[in-house]
Amino acid sequence: MKILVLHGPNLNLLGQREPEIYGSMTLADINQKLLNKAESLGVTVDIHQSNHEGELIDLIQQTDADGILINPGGYTHTSVAIRDAISGVGLPAVECHLSNIHAREPFRQHSYISPVCVGQVSGFGWRSYLLALEGLVHRVNE
Amino acid sequence: MKILVLHGPNLNLLGQREPEIYGSMTLADINQKLLNKAESLGVTVDIHQSNHEGELIDLIQQTDADGILINPGGYTHTSVAIRDAISGVGLPAVECHLSNIHAREPFRQHSYISPVCVGQVSGFGWRSYLLALEGLVHRVNE
Amino acid sequence: MKILVLHGPNLNLLGQREPEIYGSMTLADINQKLLNKAESLGVTVDIHQSNHEGELIDLIQQTDADGILINPGGYTHTSVAIRDAISGVGLPAVECHLSNIHAREPFRQHSYISPVCVGQVSGFGWRSYLLALEGLVHRVNE
Amino acid sequence: MKILVLHGPNLNLLGQREPEIYGSMTLADINQKLLNKAESLGVTVDIHQSNHEGELIDLIQQTDADGILINPGGYTHTSVAIRDAISGVGLPAVECHLSNIHAREPFRQHSYISPVCVGQVSGFGWRSYLLALEGLVHRVNE
Amino acid sequence: MKILVLHGPNLNLLGQREPEIYGSMTLADINQKLLNKAESLGVTVDIHQSNHEGELIDLIQQTDADGILINPGGYTHTSVAIRDAISGVGLPAVECHLSNIHAREPFRQHSYISPVCVGQVSGFGWRSYLLALEGLVHRVNE
Amino acid sequence: MKILVLHGPNLNLLGQREPEIYGSMTLADINQKLLNKAESLGVTVDIHQSNHEGELIDLIQQTDADGILINPGGYTHTSVAIRDAISGVGLPAVECHLSNIHAREPFRQHSYISPVCVGQVSGFGWRSYLLALEGLVHRVNE
Amino acid sequence: MKILVLHGPNLNLLGQREPEIYGSMTLADINQKLLNKAESLGVTVDIHQSNHEGELIDLIQQTDADGILINPGGYTHTSVAIRDAISGVGLPAVECHLSNIHAREPFRQHSYISPVCVGQVSGFGWRSYLLALEGLVHRVNE
Amino acid sequence: MKILVLHGPNLNLLGQREPEIYGSMTLADINQKLLNKAESLGVTVDIHQSNHEGELIDLIQQTDADGILINPGGYTHTSVAIRDAISGVGLPAVECHLSNIHAREPFRQHSYISPVCVGQVSGFGWRSYLLALEGLVHRVNE
Amino acid sequence: MKILVLHGPNLNLLGQREPEIYGSMTLADINQKLLNKAESLGVTVDIHQSNHEGELIDLIQQTDADGILINPGGYTHTSVAIRDAISGVGLPAVECHLSNIHAREPFRQHSYISPVCVGQVSGFGWRSYLLALEGLVHRVNE
Amino acid sequence: MKILVLHGPNLNLLGQREPEIYGSMTLADINQKLLNKAESLGVTVDIHQSNHEGELIDLIQQTDADGILINPGGYTHTSVAIRDAISGVGLPAVECHLSNIHAREPFRQHSYISPVCVGQVSGFGWRSYLLALEGLVHRVNE
Amino acid sequence: MKILVLHGPNLNLLGQREPEIYGSMTLADINQKLLNKAESLGVTVDIHQSNHEGELIDLIQQTDADGILINPGGYTHTSVAIRDAISGVGLPAVECHLSNIHAREPFRQHSYISPVCVGQVSGFGWRSYLLALEGLVHRVNE
Amino acid sequence: MKILVLHGPNLNLLGQREPEIYGSMTLADINQKLLNKAESLGVTVDIHQSNHEGELIDLIQQTDADGILINPGGYTHTSVAIRDAISGVGLPAVECHLSNIHAREPFRQHSYISPVCVGQVSGFGWRSYLLALEGLVHRVNE
Repeated sequence: MKILVLHGPNLNLLGQREPEIYGSMTLADINQKLLNKAESLGVTVDIHQSNHEGELIDLIQQTDADGILINPGGYTHTSVAIRDAISGVGLPAVECHLSNIHAREPFRQHSYISPVCVGQVSGFGWRSYLLALEGLVHRVNE
Repeated sequence: MKILVLHGPNLNLLGQREPEIYGSMTLADINQKLLNKAESLGVTVDIHQSNHEGELIDLIQQTDADGILINPGGYTHTSVAIRDAISGVGLPAVECHLSNIHAREPFRQHSYISPVCVGQVSGFGWRSYLLALEGLVHRVNE
Repeated sequence: MKILVLHGPNLNLLGQREPEIYGSMTLADINQKLLNKAESLGVTVDIHQSNHEGELIDLIQQTDADGILINPGGYTHTSVAIRDAISGVGLPAVECHLSNIHAREPFRQHSYISPVCVGQVSGFGWRSYLLALEGLVHRVNE
Repeated sequence: MKILVLHGPNLNLLGQREPEIYGSMTLADINQKLLNKAESLGVTVDIHQSNHEGELIDLIQQTDADGILINPGGYTHTSVAIRDAISGVGLPAVECHLSNIHAREPFRQHSYISPVCVGQVSGFGWRSYLLALEGLVHRVNE
Repeated sequence: MKILVLHGPNLNLLGQREPEIYGSMTLADINQKLLNKAESLGVTVDIHQSNHEGELIDLIQQTDADGILINPGGYTHTSVAIRDAISGVGLPAVECHLSNIHAREPFRQHSYISPVCVGQVSGFGWRSYLLALEGLVHRVNE
Repeated sequence: MKILVLHGPNLNLLGQREPEIYGSMTLADINQKLLNKAESLGVTVDIHQSNHEGELIDLIQQTDADGILINPGGYTHTSVAIRDAISGVGLPAVECHLSNIHAREPFRQHSYISPVCVGQVSGFGWRSYLLALEGLVHRVNE
Repeated sequence: MKILVLHGPNLNLLGQREPEIYGSMTLADINQKLLNKAESLGVTVDIHQSNHEGELIDLIQQTDADGILINPGGYTHTSVAIRDAISGVGLPAVECHLSNIHAREPFRQHSYISPVCVGQVSGFGWRSYLLALEGLVHRVNE
Repeated sequence: MKILVLHGPNLNLLGQREPEIYGSMTLADINQKLLNKAESLGVTVDIHQSNHEGELIDLIQQTDADGILINPGGYTHTSVAIRDAISGVGLPAVECHLSNIHAREPFRQHSYISPVCVGQVSGFGWRSYLLALEGLVHRVNE
Repeated sequence: MKILVLHGPNLNLLGQREPEIYGSMTLADINQKLLNKAESLGVTVDIHQSNHEGELIDLIQQTDADGILINPGGYTHTSVAIRDAISGVGLPAVECHLSNIHAREPFRQHSYISPVCVGQVSGFGWRSYLLALEGLVHRVNE
Repeated sequence: MKILVLHGPNLNLLGQREPEIYGSMTLADINQKLLNKAESLGVTVDIHQSNHEGELIDLIQQTDADGILINPGGYTHTSVAIRDAISGVGLPAVECHLSNIHAREPFRQHSYISPVCVGQVSGFGWRSYLLALEGLVHRVNE
Repeated sequence: MKILVLHGPNLNLLGQREPEIYGSMTLADINQKLLNKAESLGVTVDIHQSNHEGELIDLIQQTDADGILINPGGYTHTSVAIRDAISGVGLPAVECHLSNIHAREPFRQHSYISPVCVGQVSGFGWRSYLLALEGLVHRVNE
Repeated sequence: MKILVLHGPNLNLLGQREPEIYGSMTLADINQKLLNKAESLGVTVDIHQSNHEGELIDLIQQTDADGILINPGGYTHTSVAIRDAISGVGLPAVECHLSNIHAREPFRQHSYISPVCVGQVSGFGWRSYLLALEGLVHRVNE
């Protein structure tokens, strides 16, 4: 089983700037943890980050994975096109967020992506990715 | 470490009625899985179900646990009082849902509980509980 | 055939206070009329009143009736949990109201209960119950 | 006692088209049941159907009946003029609907007619008419 | 100069029913006063009443008058088609109302007709017609 | 009979600036026409203009007139205090506007003043004042 | 194959008034073009215009056509009853408009008719009819 | 004179948890102050706290007091049933809050309880209760 | 300690007009009661009334008091400028109202002033002032 | 005459995935039909597809075509920038959609693109493109 | 060239109270900087501050300046009358704010004044005035 | 000091198309003026234009500038991702617009970018850039 992991806009900034705020964990660190977790679950992961809405759509369309794990970042709240890409390819998808978006500004509480996902995990920092990966693998297995 | 697990209204119906729709997994089955997961994480769980908003509040107030895992069921969308109880006791809490509430009717997409929780897991069926428990234990450890 | 009849909050006040406003008909009187009507229809009724949302949910879950006749009172407009209980048990339900709620304050014109009921009767005073019972018995027979 | 019965737009289609969906009961059949019910209640009914908003208003204005039973069909949600006609003539009126309009699209959940009626019955198919007639007769008698 | 005067739905009820509420002034009385006023202003009036939206549109389209005085009644708040008819024929129009619609229910405070009229008079009972006629004649003269 | 005539903010600019847009009729001209009209109606008028919300309130409170004719200008849409003054003194009031405010920007279509007035005249330029005065005198006489 | 073509309110004004604005093309001209187009497509058309909502409903109910081409004019935005008629008869329907209604006032951007149509064409003047007819014929053929 | 004092959900937490935030004043302390104040006013108070909406309703219905002083806590914003209980028993009621709810989140600024109360006091901490009691006693005396 | 007491627009009408409605208590009477209450509390009060928004702002800016007691009247719902004045001078303020504004029209239920006040008292008639004064003095003492 | 044809995000998926749902018609097939139609109309077409909002804007800015035919896909509902590009280059544009977007989810019923287009065609599957091309060519010719 | 500079309500408090928050720069200091800047631009400035909405309107009406620089303070969000004054005199106007109002509470993000101004500068503290003055002078020169 | 200057979508069209509308000033001209202004202020500017949301985010993330001057064009109203990029890098930013966006269509009056900027300048044409640059340099210096 292969899982496409997509990091949306600005997630490449993690750990590089303002570590006193966002922690010293970089995106590379998170990716390593995802690789480890994937290995323990017996699956492979194909990981990408992009600030470009169109590139995220291209990656979704061109994948040969069995499921999609996506943190859409700021596109969560504005992108019908990414939503359509996910529902277009017909793969099970899980949305995850570092912070608990439901406890933030009102405009961050609406997600265009959620209705085409099987599940959502938010608020556990980098662990959101690992929990989401585990949940997604079970959903694909079903 | 002890975790209070709360099942809100109607979750006691799981597996007992219409198994062809909701599956044959009962609440007792889920509770057993939670106990197993808790054991593997080295924590204890104190599990309750109630259809009464006031009883859920009493349980939150009287607990000696270190964190709260709650599936508020229908009270998710209507209870300011449960929200106030959670923020009142000051314990880290995680909200979980069997289904992906963000993909359902509009009135189910707003949660009064989310803003006082550290995280949320939804959409993975009974596995939502296990993922949420794991995430919560890590948050308490921090 | 057995019908569960539920009177929601404050309906126990009927006829006891301010008879010049609400009439001298008590809830006991209405219940007697329901029993008579049930007998004439060849069905039995199991009647309860409660001011507690959770207790109404318990009664819905535990019934062995073939249908539910409910006047949810003030919970009509605020209870997702009662709604979920009705749809959870899968019994045909009819909602009734003494007054015509559609002619009252805006917040009384929205019902969380209606979408999970087969029908609604409102505005005929105590006769709303009898008409609703008759309609419900026909729906169960179908 | 005489009751004016008004069937609004499209109700003349009942039973004539798509009987597998709407059933084989025609408007004529419903009218016959209304006549029988009226006879058993000791009242007479004057029955009309029209697709024209203005014609429904004319009928309301010109009636010599003691009460009005109306299924306003699609005009339920858009006609201030029919509402004004009912309140203008000052007769007790009851609104009825074949389906439970409160469980349908949002625009069908608002009725301009309800606030000028004494009661409403919805969701019991053709029996909605009979229950509504019975309730109306009692209201007129009071 | 000729003015088309249109009375919308239910205005034919004036003075005939419930005179203790609406006064004993009938529509015929108002029309006589309009004729007198028109004579004093040196213009002729062509007066019609209809409960039918389509008929009001027909009258607007077929008139050879120089201006339109309209009390659209309940169609004030719901008829885009009458609005389009008025702007379609390109004649100056004035809207009038017996009551002050701006002091009534919210749905009566929005008028589809106002934006295509040169002026509006409301709240002066039958005198609203006379004031509106006088204002309209001046506007046509300009 | 005495009528208090109040011109709200910016109406003193009439005719003095941009006559090609607003016409060459000044507020003094309008006042003269009001005096003539009042004389023909056998009443007296007491006329004031102010850009100050508080001053308009003072004038309303201190008047010994039998009715109030007010063009509240920009305060139409924002002043609860002027509304309260009018209802506080309990005099019949009529609101008038030079332009048809119902055909302008949405924020100009809501009036805080209308619900405490007996009538409204808008859209007839300076003639709005004369028609409103005539209507008001009749209302006071009743 | 036969297609029912319905022109809603005010479309009979086309070309007769204000040709400098609406062009000199009359409804008769458009109808002739529709007849020519129909002939070239090998179908027949049955064409009607009415300003009456009820008459449009009657025509929809009584047709023996295989599809409906409708420009509902001002009823587009206000008629639930026409919508119900179209879905009631179960024929494929196409909505068309001379102007691009999506670029006009907000209240013209919502259509009650669209959700029961298979397609919509707007903004091409009289050619909207021909394009809509061609599209409808293909849909009926499928 | 007897006054029923009701403390809603979570108010039993006062002073017991997080004294650095909520102060060291417990609910028992507040109750003692209420008893003293009552004594000085020559009235008796009957004090209850409950986290259960239904229990609060029961207490309102069963009281033999002359007035009700209620801090509805989180039910302020969600309970139509408590509102109906207060208006049902017909006793004068006063609503009070420790914090100034009008300066908090938007959902806390709407109260279902206010419209059935004679007054409201908020923002004075435990003194809100004493001021509210004093005000209520005067209202009952009138 | 000195308290600035501000009466907003129209409060000078109290007791002078329509005593059968508003009672015979004048603003002078209320002021005398405030002076007595202040004396009993050992504080002085500086009392002003104005119908002018700007004058109320001037008074707030120029005061040398230790706290502000304000009944903003109609400006409650429309004045950002008074709000900014209160937060600008940084004095503790209490808002009071004769009637229970939360039980009145929707536009009276929103206050621009509340969020910059420490407390609010409403619904106790002239006693609202005395209760508010007492509460404010305690808040200043803290 | 040359027409720029733009396919927005996800339209490249057509016919390649889930042919049982979307049909076996690929985007290449549609493009071939467009080329044939263009040839029959005596015009040339320049066809592009992109998932990138910015690339679509670049294409609009750099074209030397005489008109634009665009299916903006998911960007229909979210892109002010594409709207600005179309109005910036000042070419006549037509918007088309495979499905009838007016019968879908509410967020798909609003288009940022429509107000800068001359027309819109939706709901005819791949034929929407051909009808839109024909309509656009006529508009350019005018 | 002469520019009218208007400081709205509460701006006279600058630098006098709470200098640790608002800085020690007084309105007099800002005015001196404006005079210096004006001199360097070769224009004169006429500077006024008022807490009175009506006085600001008077100043706008009576000025002989060539442009208006206004910081409307709290009236930004509530004054239609000041807006009308600016558009009434027909002078180019620029709105400025010390803070970035677009990053503050929602009610501060709407300005009634903006739509009648040529430009807006916000967020640069006292420098907002200087930048706005410079921009305005250029606009007047054009 | 170095300032990153970003021109969003469609700004490259300036001066090249429709000079009679947008003027003959090209983006290159504006850039030259920015370079001159920067030189006079003793800072350097790094200028980019892009129609791609993702590219603008890349540029923000990768800059080594001390502040950001951005005209986000159409992305002003739709891009949460650009907003997150600005707040992510933690540099002071100023938003500028050629036109006064607050006087345009409602959807252009909301900016996702403003809340993460220190200031905004709009409505002065190309001079908006120079004023914004000057203001930004001062803010960076502080």
